[in-house]
Amino acid sequence: MKTIAVLTSGGDAPGMNAAVRAVVRSAIYNGCKVFGVNRGYRGLIDGDLFEMDLSSVGDIIHRGGTVLKSARCLEFKTEEGREKALNVLKVFGIDGLVVVGGDGSFQGAQKLSEMGFPAIGIPGTIDNDLAYTDYTIGFDTALNTVIDAISKIRDTSSSHERVSIIEVMGRHCGDIALYAGLAGGAEVIIIPEAGYNEDEICKKLIQSKNRGKKHSIIMLAEGVGGAQKLADKIKEKTGIESRATILGHIQRGGSPSAFDRIIASQMGAKAVELLLEGKSSRVVGIKNNEIIDVDIHEALAMERKLNTEIYKLVDILSI
Amino acid sequence: MKTIAVLTSGGDAPGMNAAVRAVVRSAIYNGCKVFGVNRGYRGLIDGDLFEMDLSSVGDIIHRGGTVLKSARCLEFKTEEGREKALNVLKVFGIDGLVVVGGDGSFQGAQKLSEMGFPAIGIPGTIDNDLAYTDYTIGFDTALNTVIDAISKIRDTSSSHERVSIIEVMGRHCGDIALYAGLAGGAEVIIIPEAGYNEDEICKKLIQSKNRGKKHSIIMLAEGVGGAQKLADKIKEKTGIESRATILGHIQRGGSPSAFDRIIASQMGAKAVELLLEGKSSRVVGIKNNEIIDVDIHEALAMERKLNTEIYKLVDILSI
Amino acid sequence: MKTIAVLTSGGDAPGMNAAVRAVVRSAIYNGCKVFGVNRGYRGLIDGDLFEMDLSSVGDIIHRGGTVLKSARCLEFKTEEGREKALNVLKVFGIDGLVVVGGDGSFQGAQKLSEMGFPAIGIPGTIDNDLAYTDYTIGFDTALNTVIDAISKIRDTSSSHERVSIIEVMGRHCGDIALYAGLAGGAEVIIIPEAGYNEDEICKKLIQSKNRGKKHSIIMLAEGVGGAQKLADKIKEKTGIESRATILGHIQRGGSPSAFDRIIASQMGAKAVELLLEGKSSRVVGIKNNEIIDVDIHEALAMERKLNTEIYKLVDILSI
Amino acid sequence: MKTIAVLTSGGDAPGMNAAVRAVVRSAIYNGCKVFGVNRGYRGLIDGDLFEMDLSSVGDIIHRGGTVLKSARCLEFKTEEGREKALNVLKVFGIDGLVVVGGDGSFQGAQKLSEMGFPAIGIPGTIDNDLAYTDYTIGFDTALNTVIDAISKIRDTSSSHERVSIIEVMGRHCGDIALYAGLAGGAEVIIIPEAGYNEDEICKKLIQSKNRGKKHSIIMLAEGVGGAQKLADKIKEKTGIESRATILGHIQRGGSPSAFDRIIASQMGAKAVELLLEGKSSRVVGIKNNEIIDVDIHEALAMERKLNTEIYKLVDILSI
Repeated sequence: MKTIAVLTSGGDAPGMNAAVRAVVRSAIYNGCKVFGVNRGYRGLIDGDLFEMDLSSVGDIIHRGGTVLKSARCLEFKTEEGREKALNVLKVFGIDGLVVVGGDGSFQGAQKLSEMGFPAIGIPGTIDNDLAYTDYTIGFDTALNTVIDAISKIRDTSSSHERVSIIEVMGRHCGDIALYAGLAGGAEVIIIPEAGYNEDEICKKLIQSKNRGKKHSIIMLAEGVGGAQKLADKIKEKTGIESRATILGHIQRGGSPSAFDRIIASQMGAKAVELLLEGKSSRVVGIKNNEIIDVDIHEALAMERKLNTEIYKLVDILSI
Repeated sequence: MKTIAVLTSGGDAPGMNAAVRAVVRSAIYNGCKVFGVNRGYRGLIDGDLFEMDLSSVGDIIHRGGTVLKSARCLEFKTEEGREKALNVLKVFGIDGLVVVGGDGSFQGAQKLSEMGFPAIGIPGTIDNDLAYTDYTIGFDTALNTVIDAISKIRDTSSSHERVSIIEVMGRHCGDIALYAGLAGGAEVIIIPEAGYNEDEICKKLIQSKNRGKKHSIIMLAEGVGGAQKLADKIKEKTGIESRATILGHIQRGGSPSAFDRIIASQMGAKAVELLLEGKSSRVVGIKNNEIIDVDIHEALAMERKLNTEIYKLVDILSI
Repeated sequence: MKTIAVLTSGGDAPGMNAAVRAVVRSAIYNGCKVFGVNRGYRGLIDGDLFEMDLSSVGDIIHRGGTVLKSARCLEFKTEEGREKALNVLKVFGIDGLVVVGGDGSFQGAQKLSEMGFPAIGIPGTIDNDLAYTDYTIGFDTALNTVIDAISKIRDTSSSHERVSIIEVMGRHCGDIALYAGLAGGAEVIIIPEAGYNEDEICKKLIQSKNRGKKHSIIMLAEGVGGAQKLADKIKEKTGIESRATILGHIQRGGSPSAFDRIIASQMGAKAVELLLEGKSSRVVGIKNNEIIDVDIHEALAMERKLNTEIYKLVDILSI
Repeated sequence: MKTIAVLTSGGDAPGMNAAVRAVVRSAIYNGCKVFGVNRGYRGLIDGDLFEMDLSSVGDIIHRGGTVLKSARCLEFKTEEGREKALNVLKVFGIDGLVVVGGDGSFQGAQKLSEMGFPAIGIPGTIDNDLAYTDYTIGFDTALNTVIDAISKIRDTSSSHERVSIIEVMGRHCGDIALYAGLAGGAEVIIIPEAGYNEDEICKKLIQSKNRGKKHSIIMLAEGVGGAQKLADKIKEKTGIESRATILGHIQRGGSPSAFDRIIASQMGAKAVELLLEGKSSRVVGIKNNEIIDVDIHEALAMERKLNTEIYKLVDILSI
């Protein structure tokens, strides 16, 4: 029998609870004991662990956020901090750790692996900014939250025949803007991975207007920023009025979508499987519609590429 | 037989379509002809009217925004503008006008009434800022949109044990912040009608924290503003981290709630009834759970009062 | 200081948790102790009570169902059962009881009152079948659930140009069918309070079809029943195809609407207020947009009347 | 330049509009003319075609159902019917046809291809019952509708500590029950592809109950049927009360999810691309997260297999 611990770390994402539930249940199914760690690496250092049984993850699969909480932890970035964490893991008799989080959290898991402690990562972040996996847990829910917001904004935007600029999350990775823009029928998508030209945008808006289309949606990723400034520019250059909305933290919450719950469940079970096989320093993902695992170093070294087909498709469909 | 025109004006609100549908259908039911006016008073001046039949309002009861569009119209604020509008109404053979909108729109209806043209107002605005009526069309939908956003923000706020400050619409009237705050379980509500004391808020947050409650929601009405500044103050005075979200235009869209569709339907029918009875210069409302009508002058002169019972209740329940 | 107990009984309704929260918090605010009773009168007899503090009702305002559970309890209908319950109340030192439920639950509260134990009722039922109050807690949420279902069914009904018959809850009271039908734009509404004529319905469907409208929604209350049979009749008499859907238990769940949370909060606070004033045998309600209280006997004796204005309005608007 | 026609056929599915929009827009982008066909093959025989421009698909990406309507058409199953359709296609100068629908609709496209007319299929059905593609358009939306219903039913099921049996669509393919059951945290899943044993189910329910879990969700696919009978059996064998709900047509409607809109957009563009390349008798799909195309004959000949990993996972996670 083994004892497994699980923590969530970094920005929370809908579906983290489904992943935690899957880790706990499949561990117990396989005869293991499981501990939950509160507040990510912070709780690991502080020894804030508690044993989890089947019912401790009952009725959480549909809840947003993470029942294990999350927190930043600078101390874990120091060798001393990690030594403390390792001691806690030993004291509690933990044999392996599952970390649900983004790239920052994976670096922590990698460090622990390097110190000889088996650690497996599960990608939980709405940003979809990890190159080794097609999807991260929370991304699909965030998309659905954003397209719902687009629908609402389109109502008023259409009534007033205005342009709406919607800024969504994504500092380095524009996937939320890109995919939600495609799904929301946005006319223009502005993401960090591709440049943008104000004049081109203004031209498109004028053409749309002349064709009789009096409202348009512009999606803008956080990493590009400047929604209000763009609104001012458009007004100045075309006379067309626009309104900027920054969607903010609603994108990080909400009951997870079916897709996020499913991949979270699969990944949670896979992570336990890997630990039971004696693996370490791996991250779980989904590639080509299959659950995979990759070496953490390799995963973190991969470079994320823009899906140029999708980017091009937006152009075709917003003609 | 009479000919009735209907327009929507000012900021759009969910349920305006249900009101337009009710005007059109009950007018036709009563043997009238009905014209829709595009873009509010702008369309009235421009003669942008079209006849509406039963099916022109089919499948719109559940749609947000307004199929008749809305627009600002400075020209209607001039006597010349209004003369033009009056001429258009005569040319089209219109006998009475229904205006769906807020107080600014009602002033237009009042002017037309003073010029001898029968006009009836229906309160369509999410702000609930009209004193003569308990509810305006769109308010209930906006509340439900806001409490859904609060739920999402609470997820992430709870995961990270942070304070969330949510700024909602309401320049002079804090009803959205107040009622959504009560319904969303907010700890603090800051509205234009009542002062607020930063130290009191900080004290409450510290007490909550000491009692084990690690996340809190602060609702802030637009008219008070300064969400980010408040977040900074709280950090400075208490060390507690908080995040500000400005909900923006999502509050103005979305499929209308059952309540908004019902009162919009009732008010639309009532407006037609009043015109058929030869009434003019009246606004329709709901008071004590009954559809009422009030003289426009009187309605606009009434002073809106804060619901102090609700305001006090928030304090009791967020203890 | 007093000690108050609270229970939920009968069919659950969204907003019951908001009511429980309000009872607990306003009781504590007023210096009382509060006990929660599990599983309604069953728990009262079994002594299944537990003390509730402020945090025991944290983060429940937005949850459907009832954290206190509900159950049928035949034993409480006997004098022996009630004696047991009374003893439990005394042993726990309870001074007053708040019962959230429908008319069956109120009868229990009345019996306890008659035995000299102060009891106050709060109307929690989606059916809106209590004559003394304009609205019951849960009704507004159920309406919104039903109109959302209508929207979904309308999509497919419109694609296939079919009639859809939707059966909703309401054994004796057709309010869900009536109000949701109005809000959902239903063509026909069939409720227990009013007869219906198959030929009239068939005539209306044929007229609609001839006018170019190829899909229609028929709302049917559970108390009338026979959705599938009606579908068969319509097919037989008109050749028009229709599909029957029985919405079922989804109407009883879901996150409560803003309106339900607000009235539940107000009613919970009011119930505590009444107990503190030494009142007993009262039920809380909302009438003319004001929170009221009425003697239980009187309340249960009142006869619920159909809102004929609304019923007539449906006819006008579905012309 | 080419002229392309598009139709939707069979049971409607959310996302069909997004597919139609993509066909129209990418065809126009590529310099083609596009015609929409009303009511599937019925409209093809009747010559019910109309030219579509860019704005005819404006603001439909978020709408459920299909703006092109759907209908059964027995006549098209005859050679005569197909000859008529072919003549219509020639008269309108159509060079290629895109059919959005399920396997029945694909057979029609195949027949036309065999008659020498270029036809391409796009998989639009909520059932996910086509073996050549990982996902069909509408499946993801249906899953999200079902898990939302499960959440609502779980509320009341948990309050009353009852078992809920939920019957969902799927005559031969249990994917909706399987995936929604996994995502909804169902305890038992009963699908046509796998047998089920009443005693096993009863045993599991008793074990759950003894472990303190007092409510359970059983998902049942339409193809298995007998929800009420199962409820009766469970009552008889275990004494545990259960309630059956048949979700019905709400599963077929609603605003499409982000995922469905995205794959529908991609598939629509792909179908046009294939026609422009002179291809015929192909169906578009998504396999291993990539848009693919397959010969219709081959596609229809493939046998759908149960995802046994998912089926096994449900067992592990509902331990």
